Amino acid sequence: MALIVQKFGGTSVGTVDRIRNVAERIKKFRDRGDDVVVVVSAMSGETNRLIEMAYQIEDRPNAREYDVLLSTGEQVTIALLSMALNKLGVPARSYTGTQVHILTDSAHNKARILDIKEKNMRTDLEQGRVVVVAGFQGVDEQGDITTLGRGGSDTTAVALAAALNADECQIYTDVDGVYTTDPRVVPEARRLDKITFEEMLEMASLGSKVLQIRAVEFAGKYNVPLRVLSSFDEPDFDADGSGASGTLITYEEDEMEQALISGIAFNRDEAKLTILGVPDKPGVAYSILGPVGDANIEIDMIIQNISADGTTDFTFTIHRNDFESATAVLTRVSNELGAREVVGDDKIVKISLVGVGMRSHAGIASKMFKTLAEEGININMISTSEIKISVVVDEKYLELGVRTLHSAFGLEQKTS
Amino acid sequence: MALIVQKFGGTSVGTVDRIRNVAERIKKFRDRGDDVVVVVSAMSGETNRLIEMAYQIEDRPNAREYDVLLSTGEQVTIALLSMALNKLGVPARSYTGTQVHILTDSAHNKARILDIKEKNMRTDLEQGRVVVVAGFQGVDEQGDITTLGRGGSDTTAVALAAALNADECQIYTDVDGVYTTDPRVVPEARRLDKITFEEMLEMASLGSKVLQIRAVEFAGKYNVPLRVLSSFDEPDFDADGSGASGTLITYEEDEMEQALISGIAFNRDEAKLTILGVPDKPGVAYSILGPVGDANIEIDMIIQNISADGTTDFTFTIHRNDFESATAVLTRVSNELGAREVVGDDKIVKISLVGVGMRSHAGIASKMFKTLAEEGININMISTSEIKISVVVDEKYLELGVRTLHSAFGLEQKTS
Repeated sequence: MALIVQKFGGTSVGTVDRIRNVAERIKKFRDRGDDVVVVVSAMSGETNRLIEMAYQIEDRPNAREYDVLLSTGEQVTIALLSMALNKLGVPARSYTGTQVHILTDSAHNKARILDIKEKNMRTDLEQGRVVVVAGFQGVDEQGDITTLGRGGSDTTAVALAAALNADECQIYTDVDGVYTTDPRVVPEARRLDKITFEEMLEMASLGSKVLQIRAVEFAGKYNVPLRVLSSFDEPDFDADGSGASGTLITYEEDEMEQALISGIAFNRDEAKLTILGVPDKPGVAYSILGPVGDANIEIDMIIQNISADGTTDFTFTIHRNDFESATAVLTRVSNELGAREVVGDDKIVKISLVGVGMRSHAGIASKMFKTLAEEGININMISTSEIKISVVVDEKYLELGVRTLHSAFGLEQKTS
Repeated sequence: MALIVQKFGGTSVGTVDRIRNVAERIKKFRDRGDDVVVVVSAMSGETNRLIEMAYQIEDRPNAREYDVLLSTGEQVTIALLSMALNKLGVPARSYTGTQVHILTDSAHNKARILDIKEKNMRTDLEQGRVVVVAGFQGVDEQGDITTLGRGGSDTTAVALAAALNADECQIYTDVDGVYTTDPRVVPEARRLDKITFEEMLEMASLGSKVLQIRAVEFAGKYNVPLRVLSSFDEPDFDADGSGASGTLITYEEDEMEQALISGIAFNRDEAKLTILGVPDKPGVAYSILGPVGDANIEIDMIIQNISADGTTDFTFTIHRNDFESATAVLTRVSNELGAREVVGDDKIVKISLVGVGMRSHAGIASKMFKTLAEEGININMISTSEIKISVVVDEKYLELGVRTLHSAFGLEQKTS
């Protein structure tokens, strides 16, 4: 019926029993007539076991050899899953990244996929076999094994789906989809049936760790319909023919539920730094942010105010772990530039409303600010994009802020 | 100074600490100026862990996938050892069987090496790198991963030594060489400095499990000097310049110690079966031994006596595990052929004197028989080859027989 790429993460294949369950799930799709390509991660715990051994040897393990080591984790899973499928009478063949020939650049530990040879996989599919591919790994032009970095199995799945022009790429995880916000904070949080790639990117980068952000970008770029679903739920072939519920990530369509807001993302580990009274002249932004970037500190939000006296203030947010080193860099820069003062706060969080619907609707921002104000929550910083409004608030207001906004925008109710 | 292939087994690389020790040993050879290619097995216990998972899934795991699974064991070791070498400032690169391109046939789980591409290894050696190769594995023409069967890492090492025309292939194990006999039976057993390939083959096939027999055959065929030595002893560069003591296995040379007997091998797990009173006619041997072979029972010694009344007796030895099934086969054959009787004994052992020296010396056999007779040890069967005399005796005489012979032939003393 369809060509489906299914990706199972480490928890879903964490034991031999679970691998057997995955095989039985795949069999149901095969029995229905689907062609199936499966991408698997290492059994949960396995990658950490390998990493520990590497760090027993070296504080900074040789990057090439680190990839040779880590790639064995997925290789074990593809072999066991293929055995389990064959045992169920479902012909299957395993492929390492090298064997598929998932060509990547040579950036060990964080390689990027350049090309995928899909010929062998096609032949297997035509002969009725399930193709089982090791996620997270590839091979460079020299024949060296590379890995895509943690969570890279999602990227492998999407890239294979794109190369094979698959009908759907299903990412099985231990959650059953993408929620309007974190259910641990808002018990009324609701699973979304659909979400757009752009919204998903905003949700992912803002701390919804369901999918690796590169995989979403990749899926968006090649227009691969992506579905997030739980490997512990039974397949539901009645729902919409996809054999699965979960959350479907696609491009915006006319019939898509046109909620103003799809979800509320938040990030707990934020800190902000402000440099006050910087003489305002061309290039000043670079002379402040350049040294921060050079210190490998990632900057998130940036706000600049021009003040009346010919000086300017810069505020930016960073990961809380980088607070001390960023303060040191900024103090040095402040002295060089003759700025007045550096002040910081590492007890802040970011809350973001995300939704393609807000593109065409004014008033979302003001409703957000009003809602927070009514609860006495002071807003430190504001940043907006076409489909997102983020505010920085004191750490203590995180739960209150998210819950109030979730309710104010009616996210617990399904829109029709 | 020299090009040396060093092979380290599972015990020698059984922990991260031991891998570090192996790296330090290799560094000593590099510091001396040797070029080194290293072959490693899976960390001890790892292969069994993988096998257990496979058998949890299937009683007869898919052969192709079994190889994909098992080959990860050695891949982990090559990565960790290469990291440890790089950490010591010794540049090193790991290679899987696929990456070297150790081409094998497609007989999964017991593949044979057909060809080795040594170009990449040469380039690395020229650039001063240690080359670290995964033992036990190869790749077939379709790009599928194969394994050589258990103990196949020895074969990998010898094959690489042959392909690279190495000066010596060193097999590191948990024993420090080949002994005149098992030191657990004869405490005076002495380590041999040298032994010939032919002697080693006889010793190995007779139960001295130091080296895989295929590796010895391979080394003999390509005239690769093979050294067995302990990975727990310090390298001894003063001994003979080889950087190692242990036992050297080479072709017979003029200057080689010309002992009559090199060692005493024995095999505890023997059984014998005799079919008595078989009508003697052409083809009778085949009609008896054919069905035994068809039942996948390996036959070791065979003796036939012609008696006066036109009938003949056949006696042969087998592995003790096969005793019952062989008895059943032989009873059926006996009825078909109209033989008188089938008798068997599964409480026997085989003791063998091995030595190239016996080729040119009469009297070895008679001295052996006399020595055993003086101790009241009855000989059940005798079999001889050019460099070996084997006798079958009652199980209870094993230790007495081996000790008495060891002493009678003066094996505890080093010949000059």
